[in-house]
Amino acid sequence: MEKMIFCGKPMEDLVEDIRKFHGHIAPGLVIGGFMVDWALELLGDIPKIGAIVETCRCLPDAIQVFTPCTYGNGRMKILDWDKFAFSLYDKKDLKGFRVWLDLEKARAFPNIYNWYMRLVPKKDLPLEILLKTIMEAQRLILSSCRVHVIAFYDEKKRGLTRVCPSCGEAYLAEHGNSCLSCQGKGYYT
Amino acid sequence: MEKMIFCGKPMEDLVEDIRKFHGHIAPGLVIGGFMVDWALELLGDIPKIGAIVETCRCLPDAIQVFTPCTYGNGRMKILDWDKFAFSLYDKKDLKGFRVWLDLEKARAFPNIYNWYMRLVPKKDLPLEILLKTIMEAQRLILSSCRVHVIAFYDEKKRGLTRVCPSCGEAYLAEHGNSCLSCQGKGYYT
Repeated sequence: MEKMIFCGKPMEDLVEDIRKFHGHIAPGLVIGGFMVDWALELLGDIPKIGAIVETCRCLPDAIQVFTPCTYGNGRMKILDWDKFAFSLYDKKDLKGFRVWLDLEKARAFPNIYNWYMRLVPKKDLPLEILLKTIMEAQRLILSSCRVHVIAFYDEKKRGLTRVCPSCGEAYLAEHGNSCLSCQGKGYYT
Repeated sequence: MEKMIFCGKPMEDLVEDIRKFHGHIAPGLVIGGFMVDWALELLGDIPKIGAIVETCRCLPDAIQVFTPCTYGNGRMKILDWDKFAFSLYDKKDLKGFRVWLDLEKARAFPNIYNWYMRLVPKKDLPLEILLKTIMEAQRLILSSCRVHVIAFYDEKKRGLTRVCPSCGEAYLAEHGNSCLSCQGKGYYT
């Protein structure tokens, strides 16, 4: 039997990539892998892809593992909307596809629906059962549509920096006459 | 000659990991690799590490590639301060180490100082020259100190979600009676 290929890899490699990067096999990331696989297929051969992710939970890691878009390279934007959805688009013409977990379709897979809607306690839905359902469902729980991105697509330019007279480190000039840490707004003692 | 090991890997693997994840070999990520290597050595054997990064540029990817902390697993927090610094800390007692690019020390390596302070145009400082200097400098351009983290350490709990009556997708309930997209605040048409 021919191996099924997702995001350019056999399924087991995809799951292993998730485990290595994310630290554990999160169900949302496996669904995310199927979502990215579909979005990339819809997009076709695009030299420079951008990503907008509509949740900060799990899904950003699927984007980072399976696309060239990362937080640090500025090509993945994250919206704290808690929507299980993202768009991948062509950075040149801003056209692309949004893919999302379609709750109506997910109803046909109660394990997935109940997990996502938090209707069953974790202990009553073992990970392996949930993963098995996700592998069966693949794209059957997803929807997609064409989008034209109209916001959040610009790569942030590096702002003016200044050397803090107090700590001697470079910081974002717009923060004031010294860096936020030296203004007492730091996160450590 | 024995290979030098950084973040548990020979240097060439570390650089290849950066290229694969980030898309290209960004000098800041190579410095970031040395920073993570040092911070991990200082921290010692900690079961659960957290990270706070003080810039959204490049450095978050060094954290994601070389530590178990990622954006999607909630263990990396990012502050938009444009400071070339981060802290790695023990999630249990919130104690750890901050490592930063020390500008005073970097003056001894003009290629690095000039690159970071944007004092020379990119075309006058070829990547291979800059990388060579970074490889020579290693930790000589860095400083570190012990920190006790007092903010940004909590892992965000998933908020209450609701199904949007307009699009049928789950969204963060606190956003109102429908999701932000359906309120006309979306990023696509």
